Parts: sequence; C-alpha cells; structure tokens
Amino acid sequence: MGFAELWDSLLPVGRDATTGGYRRYSFTEADACCREWFFKTAAERSLRASSDPNGNLWAWWDVPAATAGSSARADGIAGGSGGSSPRANTAGTCVVTGSHLDSVPDGGPYDGPLGVVSGFAAIDLLRARGFAPARPVAVAAFCEEEGGRFGLACLGSRLLTGAVQPEAARELRDAGGVTLAEAMTGAGLDPARLGQDDELLGRIGAFVELHIEQGRALAGLGAPVAIGEAIWPHGRWRLDFTGRADHAGTTRLADRRDPMLPYAATVLEARQAAAVGGALATFGKITAEPGAANAICSTVSAWLDARAQDQAVLDHMVGQIEATARRAAAAQGVEVSMRRESFTPPVEFDPALRARLARALAARGIAAPVLATGAGHDAGVLAARLPAAMLFIRNPTGVSHSPAEHADLADCEAGVAALAAVLEELSGR
Amino acid sequence: MGFAELWDSLLPVGRDATTGGYRRYSFTEADACCREWFFKTAAERSLRASSDPNGNLWAWWDVPAATAGSSARADGIAGGSGGSSPRANTAGTCVVTGSHLDSVPDGGPYDGPLGVVSGFAAIDLLRARGFAPARPVAVAAFCEEEGGRFGLACLGSRLLTGAVQPEAARELRDAGGVTLAEAMTGAGLDPARLGQDDELLGRIGAFVELHIEQGRALAGLGAPVAIGEAIWPHGRWRLDFTGRADHAGTTRLADRRDPMLPYAATVLEARQAAAVGGALATFGKITAEPGAANAICSTVSAWLDARAQDQAVLDHMVGQIEATARRAAAAQGVEVSMRRESFTPPVEFDPALRARLARALAARGIAAPVLATGAGHDAGVLAARLPAAMLFIRNPTGVSHSPAEHADLADCEAGVAALAAVLEELSGR
Repeated sequence: MGFAELWDSLLPVGRDATTGGYRRYSFTEADACCREWFFKTAAERSLRASSDPNGNLWAWWDVPAATAGSSARADGIAGGSGGSSPRANTAGTCVVTGSHLDSVPDGGPYDGPLGVVSGFAAIDLLRARGFAPARPVAVAAFCEEEGGRFGLACLGSRLLTGAVQPEAARELRDAGGVTLAEAMTGAGLDPARLGQDDELLGRIGAFVELHIEQGRALAGLGAPVAIGEAIWPHGRWRLDFTGRADHAGTTRLADRRDPMLPYAATVLEARQAAAVGGALATFGKITAEPGAANAICSTVSAWLDARAQDQAVLDHMVGQIEATARRAAAAQGVEVSMRRESFTPPVEFDPALRARLARALAARGIAAPVLATGAGHDAGVLAARLPAAMLFIRNPTGVSHSPAEHADLADCEAGVAALAAVLEELSGR
Repeated sequence: MGFAELWDSLLPVGRDATTGGYRRYSFTEADACCREWFFKTAAERSLRASSDPNGNLWAWWDVPAATAGSSARADGIAGGSGGSSPRANTAGTCVVTGSHLDSVPDGGPYDGPLGVVSGFAAIDLLRARGFAPARPVAVAAFCEEEGGRFGLACLGSRLLTGAVQPEAARELRDAGGVTLAEAMTGAGLDPARLGQDDELLGRIGAFVELHIEQGRALAGLGAPVAIGEAIWPHGRWRLDFTGRADHAGTTRLADRRDPMLPYAATVLEARQAAAVGGALATFGKITAEPGAANAICSTVSAWLDARAQDQAVLDHMVGQIEATARRAAAAQGVEVSMRRESFTPPVEFDPALRARLARALAARGIAAPVLATGAGHDAGVLAARLPAAMLFIRNPTGVSHSPAEHADLADCEAGVAALAAVLEELSGR
C-alpha cells in the first residue's frame, strides 16, 4: 500500500464537519477510532500491536528468532557518545519510529499522524525492497501528546519515562471535570497500571520521530526534509489580573479597577519583547469574568506561551513581560499574579544519532538541512532516556494547529523515503 | 412593614452561594421565585397584581369607585408640556413607580430590586399616614431589563412600548440556544401575546423609577437622593478580529496573523479616547478561538460598550476606536469588522414632571441634586411614550453590577420617603 492510500484511510477520523478541523481527544470516540485504525493497519502488515499501560500504541516488526540470535547487537545503536542522554540505556537494540494521533482543538491532519502513517509506509517500502531488519523495528503512537484533553502535553511519553508521576496524572481533569483515571477506565484501560516502564525503554536503542514542520523554515530552504537539531526551552505561564466588577455605563474612569487594561498592555509587551529577543511569545487563551458587555471585568486570566533559542533569552523575555504586567496592573489598581504552569528545558538531540541520520540520507542523495524547533515533541521527552532524533517535513504555508495545515504529497513521500533510509541504516546488519 | 424587613424578604432569592452575586435571569427558577415574592408582597397589601403579556409585573393600588368617579382628572398629570415625550398620552391618570428584579451575571442586590421594594415600602408609608390617592398607583417590575439572559436590555419595556417587535423578540436566544418564546412558554406565559400595549400605556400619566446610583456622583455631593435629568446616548459594538490559527511555538513573528494584537491596541485606545472625551468606553466581554494556550488565535471577538454626554462626543470617540482597530489589524494582516449591536439615543426626562418632583421634595425639606447617567433604564424606554422621571439613591462606593454593590440602609429609607412624597404629589387631589 502506498503512502497516499494509507493516509486517506485515517483522514476522515475525528474531523469536525463544520470547521474541517480535527478533534481527536484522548479516550473519546474519535480516539477509539484512531486506535482501531492503528491496530487494523498493524494487522494488515502482520505487525504485533498492543497498547502499553500508559495508553501508547506499539506495532512491532519482529526479527525472526534465528536472525535475532545471530545478529542482534548487544551494545545499543547510537552508543550515547557525547549526547544529551545522560541515562541512555546503551543496551537497547530496537529501533522505534512514530509520533501521535491526537490533535489540538480543530487542529490539522498532519501534526502527529504524519509520523505514524509514515512509519507504517516506510516499513511497506522496506519490505517491498526485500529488506529484513537485524533488529526489531516498531511504530509507536504516543498518547495525549497535545494535552488537548487533560492539559499536559506529551502525557503518554512523560508517563513512560517517569517525567510525570502516575498519582498526579490520574487526577488530571478535562474541561468537563472527568479525571484521566475515569477516562482511561471508560476506554478499557487500567489507570492503576500507569507509570514508568524501564523494561520497555531498555529495549529501545533509538527513537526517530518524523513530524510536519510547524513553521516555514524548510519552505525557505527549498528542501522537503530536515534533521531536527534541538528543541527550544519553552513554557506556559498563567496570569491572573484581578480588578473589580463595576457598571460600564456609570463608573467614572478614575474609579475603575479594570483588569482588561493591564492585560492589553501585557499582550503588546510580549510581542515587543519577543521581537527584540528573536524569540516567540503568544497569548492565545483568555477568560474574562463576569464577561458581560456592560460590566467592567472583575478578573482576566490569560496564558502566555513563551519560547526562545536558549534559557537566558527566555528568562529575560519572560521577566520583561512580567515587569510590564505588574507596572500596568499597579497603574490601574489591579492585582496580578503570574505562575509557571509548565516548562520544558532545552533538548539537544543525540549528536551521534543525528550524524548517523545525516550519513544515511546523504548516502541516498537526500540533502537534509538541520533545524531547531520551538515545539515540544515526544522525541524531546524520550531524549532524556535514550538516543532520539527527528525528521521534519516541509510545510509550505507554515500553518499548523489549524484546519488549513498542509503538506504536499510529494514531500510526504520524500519523508517516507528518508525515514525508510534511516530505519534501514539503524536496524540493518 | 418597614423597608428593612421587606428588603430582607427578597435578599436570598437567586443569590449564588459561591460568589455572593445574583443570577436572577428571566424565566428561570430564580425568576419564578422573584415573581412569587412580588405577588405575595402585593397580596399582603391587598394590591391587585398581574403579569402583563410581556412578562412585566404590576401591583395596583386602586382608587375606590366613588373616589375615582368624583376626583380622577381626565387631563393627565404632567401634561407633557415642553417635554421630551412626543407621543405622551395626556389622558393617562395612573401613577406608576417600579424598576426590575432581574440581574446581570453575579450582579448586586440593589440594581433593580431597590426600586421595586421601595415602591411597596412607599405605599406602606403613605397608608400609615392615612393618605388615600385620588388616582390609581402601581408598582411595576419590568422583565429582562439587564438583557442578562437574552442579550437585549429593557426587553419588557421595549415590548410594551413597541420599541422592539414581538416577532424579533420571540427569536432571541439565550447562551444555551433556548428562544425567548420557549422560555416564556416554560414559565406559563404565551409568547403569541407579546407586543405593544397602547391601552395600558394610555392609562399611565407618569412613571417614576427609583434606582441605586451606579457611580459615585451623589457620594461626592453628600446627598442621599437625586433627580434624574437625562440618560447619555450609549451603545454596544461587536468587533471581530479575524487572523489565522497557527502553532504558537513554531510560527515566526513575521508569518503571524495574530488577532490578539490589534484587539489589545484597541482596548488601550478605547480608554484613551474616553479619557480625552470625558466619556466612557469599556471592553468587558471577549471570546478567543480556538482558545488553546499553544495556538495563535484565529479570531478574537470583543464587545465595546461606549457612552457619552452627547451624540457628537460619542460618535467621535467610537470613530477613533474604530480607526485604531482598523490600523492595528491591518498592521498584523488581520481582518476586522465592527457592527453596532444596540444603541439608545439620548433621553431627557420630562421637564414638567422633573420640576414637579423637585417641588414635592423641596416642600418636604429634601434637597435633591440633579444627575445625568450613562446607564440605560426602563424609565428611558418609557419616556418615549409618557412622562417619565427617575430618583437615584446614593452609592457610597459607586460599585454596581458586582456582588459588592451596596447602599446604606438610611439612604434607602430616605429614598422611600422621597418616593412617597413624589407619589403623594402625583396621585393626590
């Protein structure tokens, strides 16, 4: 089966008829359909598929016992030499690729699924060439990567690696108050089994995630595929501006404590500070209470997403934004609190693994530039435990987290070819 | 029964236990309790009470047939001489006071109910003095004054006077999609009977609404009661900023079309323009889509509430705000549309009626300053059809549309005394 046919088989799942966007939230009906698609796709390829206790899906291309006995190397793949994987398990031999199937609210079709579909398509391509791996190869789909339902990004990979504790995860709630534990139980999974899985991690020698680029860097470079170099440090801060609800038609300006004003000043400062620092800062979520058109707000709560090329730039930028928020709030008699809700330190992907990817692509005539990204990925989480790397696929508009997200079919097919080359390199003799 | 006891009997109805604010939305359970309270309070006073077809409540202090036959004047009360009531029915003889019982979301206890409770308390006071009116007196409670459920302020008085058409009103929807027609039917009212009621209006010679002041002007003047002079022209505009949803962690600043940025610039301009014009401009309601912390918004919708002392100032201010919105949107590649959702032209209360109120209060030693207000009221709607006036009660903090709204008991009692003086003057021989 070619990439296009496989891609089309997943495309309708979880798509909203009105917006055209995807609403593939974990442990919903759309998610069950995605899981069903994963198991069916694996079964059609005689890949051994299962869900791990954290809700991540795995489809294994096993090595026949005779082959494994004679050729599986015991010393791991990338060796972890000089990489950023302090606890890399050098005994891992399996090669894993994959990404995630869940979406942000009204997301596009590529963010996540492209990596999973390309994993299966790359296996199809290798088999069509008659390639037989010397090490087991798997396609993985990690659970709740977007945090679209329970608010914590990369939840499945964080649970797998121990970056989040199962007790805390079980109590995460969706917008309707349903806990992760309840949602998992409803989907037939046992929340008591959540948690770190060193046995599984120990078997993995390398993880390579293919993902659509979520900006336009590759479009500017004229290349369909890039090798991921690093993930920028990034975090999310919640700001609560607390003023006083008053009648909008009668309260003199001098008597107001309107939290919308310092919020507005903070939005403009965030953009300014990001521009100066060559970084990114965004306010995309806001709630205003009581939210009546004829009442001054009592509170405005807003979320800042901030990312930068290094920690120092990020700290400086967030500090400037906070200072403006405090100054503008004080000028209006408004209280402000600012709390970091999540943070991901910088990740540099394993240099040895990256070098091996570059050689494998070059050997097949694929010129792949090197890119850093501001987006978090499961590969970034796994990089703390094992050699990990990424391949990015060109996004001509740069649009992502939107129904308009798009990649050209030819570029997706180039991505499959590149991924096949990488899997062949890593799992071959 | 004194004012305090009557006030306390209504106080618990529709109060939210968490916020302490009121959620008295039309045709809900809280509203049914308010209506029950109105009928019980009327019955305790042998006042003839009913709901009119538009959901407004009336409690009539009828004049005995013999008295009415001998003394009810046929030429109305204020005469409409030189007033702003072009269609004032000069044959009206009844004197009506009242206000409304519904609230904004998490509103305070005084906005509306103070006028209804004071109406009943003023009748108690007049009866205790042995006063017998020569003209019928009524206490009214108008329906959906705040527009808190169906979004159109002064709905009950607008329907009564024909300022809104019943066909349009029936299709108004609440946040849950329920139409006014459905909500009325659920509350036992017949939406087919909605509409202008010239017979009822024709019987009313004067309407005087008592209301808590929603600013701090009276507090600065050291007076408990003021006479309303005029209502500022005011309106509500909806602004839709349409950009493009993108990933907050990967989209370069130069590639963004972020609608939150022109929104923020418009908020700051609105405050600036209001300050320059001595007017009021507020953004209290906003929705941001898709509303994910890690996605640039596709759209930001916001509502501008703008009010000014005269039409020219209002037009100039709104024009400046719109110009800034368009300029700031264009700079970010964002589309903006601005649409007026509601508008109330300036209202000057009937000069002859105001003069009579001033004389009645002065005769009882009550020094009442004269105040204009930026808030809309049922009295402003009724002023288009009959002589109308207002009394304002001092608000020491100026806070309104908030659980913290407060008036001192002594000031409320002074208000009842002033209202009783006015009713005596207007309904006496």
